[in-house]
Amino acid sequence: MSNQTITLILSYLRQNRTATRSDLAAALGLHTRTVAHTVKTLLDRGLLIPAGRQQSAAGRRQELFSINSSYRNYIGLDLGATHIIGILVDANCSVLERVAFDIRPGLGVEMIISQLRSVANRLQVSENRTASVGGVGVCVPGFVDPRAGVSIVAENIVGWRNIQLHKILSADTTAPLVIEDSSRTLGVAERWTGSVQRASDFLVIDIGYGVGMAIYAGGELYRGTNYKSGEIGHVTVVPDGTVCTCGKHGCLETVASGKAVAAIARTAVRQGKSPMLMDLVQGNVDSISAADVGVAANTGDALARDLLRSAGGFIGLALANAANLLNPSHIVLGGGMINAGAILLDSVREALSLHTMAEIFNELELSVSELGIDGSALGSAIIAMLDTTSPAD
Amino acid sequence: MSNQTITLILSYLRQNRTATRSDLAAALGLHTRTVAHTVKTLLDRGLLIPAGRQQSAAGRRQELFSINSSYRNYIGLDLGATHIIGILVDANCSVLERVAFDIRPGLGVEMIISQLRSVANRLQVSENRTASVGGVGVCVPGFVDPRAGVSIVAENIVGWRNIQLHKILSADTTAPLVIEDSSRTLGVAERWTGSVQRASDFLVIDIGYGVGMAIYAGGELYRGTNYKSGEIGHVTVVPDGTVCTCGKHGCLETVASGKAVAAIARTAVRQGKSPMLMDLVQGNVDSISAADVGVAANTGDALARDLLRSAGGFIGLALANAANLLNPSHIVLGGGMINAGAILLDSVREALSLHTMAEIFNELELSVSELGIDGSALGSAIIAMLDTTSPAD
Repeated sequence: MSNQTITLILSYLRQNRTATRSDLAAALGLHTRTVAHTVKTLLDRGLLIPAGRQQSAAGRRQELFSINSSYRNYIGLDLGATHIIGILVDANCSVLERVAFDIRPGLGVEMIISQLRSVANRLQVSENRTASVGGVGVCVPGFVDPRAGVSIVAENIVGWRNIQLHKILSADTTAPLVIEDSSRTLGVAERWTGSVQRASDFLVIDIGYGVGMAIYAGGELYRGTNYKSGEIGHVTVVPDGTVCTCGKHGCLETVASGKAVAAIARTAVRQGKSPMLMDLVQGNVDSISAADVGVAANTGDALARDLLRSAGGFIGLALANAANLLNPSHIVLGGGMINAGAILLDSVREALSLHTMAEIFNELELSVSELGIDGSALGSAIIAMLDTTSPAD
Repeated sequence: MSNQTITLILSYLRQNRTATRSDLAAALGLHTRTVAHTVKTLLDRGLLIPAGRQQSAAGRRQELFSINSSYRNYIGLDLGATHIIGILVDANCSVLERVAFDIRPGLGVEMIISQLRSVANRLQVSENRTASVGGVGVCVPGFVDPRAGVSIVAENIVGWRNIQLHKILSADTTAPLVIEDSSRTLGVAERWTGSVQRASDFLVIDIGYGVGMAIYAGGELYRGTNYKSGEIGHVTVVPDGTVCTCGKHGCLETVASGKAVAAIARTAVRQGKSPMLMDLVQGNVDSISAADVGVAANTGDALARDLLRSAGGFIGLALANAANLLNPSHIVLGGGMINAGAILLDSVREALSLHTMAEIFNELELSVSELGIDGSALGSAIIAMLDTTSPAD
């Protein structure tokens, strides 16, 4: 029994409400014996419950099962460069409560930690709780060490280095805690909610203030040798380009992240290159965000359109090179920047097609995430659930 | 019992000659039960044999095992753009016979197939055979479909499309046949012979007439969703570059393959830019190969040195971007071009360091393959052995 089998069975039941063992084996392409073993374990734990018997014309009617939504609740926390999002979900992944804050760039590390703790605490004592909290998942950008529970570095949060997240948050909860990279938890949520449920080899890019990626290989989340995989934001796309927060030059994040798009727009607006964008932010150039650039582009602003076209082109190039290496069946585009609209997405698709080998591109499905801003928080809650339901548990 | 466990145990025994179950468990980090089960299966099959008992001061002396070198022989065939190499090995992977031909670029498909068959036949009836042939592994560049036994396309061999290799070679042998990509079999050989024996996540780049790569993820060879992974030769490194055999522009192969280095050198020599290289090939400019460029560079020729420095820089850039995505513990440089010398290898290392995130580069070991020109053929023989020894067998 693997995490992969549990994920397949739980996500199928979440979407189809009930199923028999035969349904699961047929729909998920699993051995009957594997399904029977996993279902038994999950029933013993109380995460699945019997849900009557199948209606059928003849023969022995098989038992139906469903997820026991009152089994446990799980908390998912997403600490980003510009937000903290916390959700409380039941075992069906229905959201019971949501708390979110914006973070101003430059907010001190102590203040961020204090806000994160307060979000975790509010969810733990939520009046909407339907069961005890079975686990807490926390995701952060940058490098994490899930074993040690440490957020090693998040370049896009000033001063954020070697934060002992597990230790800090353990002070407030007795539930098991899991730490993971936020692009990976977005990937976990995509897998769980269905768009890539049955895929084994796929990529989920997370284009937000920074840029990261979840890689699935052979049906498993691939973390790399030291949990540092997926740094597509730091592949070099302009060999002699500007310096990045990571210290290298010409990384994808320097030309195609929310941070970069906003910064390039601010400089251009100050040079008088977009009166529309200047009007949009009522002259407060410092406040221009990637979202503002998206709004301006959709209203026809030439500068904003050029910026998003360029960003999309670089993202498509980086994804094409990842596809040439990894031959994925699916690429899912996620993160806040995908809301910038069709210009960005069209440019991504065009560059992806241009730079991917035809034989690989023709067998590749490109889609846009439907999870919205809470995707990484949802994935964090899911890893908390899977971690506490894993075979070794 | 997985292929991974069999690989670990056999390659350990190949290097250490004998071992006890405890030796294997301790050295390979495997469960005692897994070792016992796998050893029993391999003993039952006759691939392992008892080899006495361990010398020890006290206590019960454990049984020793070794590979039964007279169990079966295996044939490994490597069809490249410029060569056919065939080897016959015993179960210890000792080479019993070797046959090799150079292929002139432009040789017809029929002739190549005919030569490949004659190599296979010579090895099958070799006087050096120590056992019956248990399997034949064949590797080709480009895209393969191992299930169908088809070489789909090898861009660097003119006219080579949809060649039914399994069917063709089955006419001459009753032994099981396996078809694989030649960069992947180089990776298999590297894993087997020790430099990355214990590594789980690593890359082996194969820089020859073309450029390919083997990717190991979680201890398993990663083939991608349709067996098309590892096309590092076709990642875009010059977005507006020259057209590649694959139809895209600015692929790594257009600036850093043996084919490209030779072509660029020929043009430059015709323009009088390297009298030394012109002398080296006695005026026969058409015959200039990447190996000639290597010789000229090592003798101090400025053009040749620049060419190899440029090629190394692009290879390092492409590898850095792969490392940023995959966080491997090791990168092994292999293929014929690595013989071009220190200038190329130094440039690879320099660009790799420049474009890889420091946190990833610092935990990454770069090494040069010691397998020589027969690496892919050896890997082919190994996959033939593993395939016929696999759990499903």
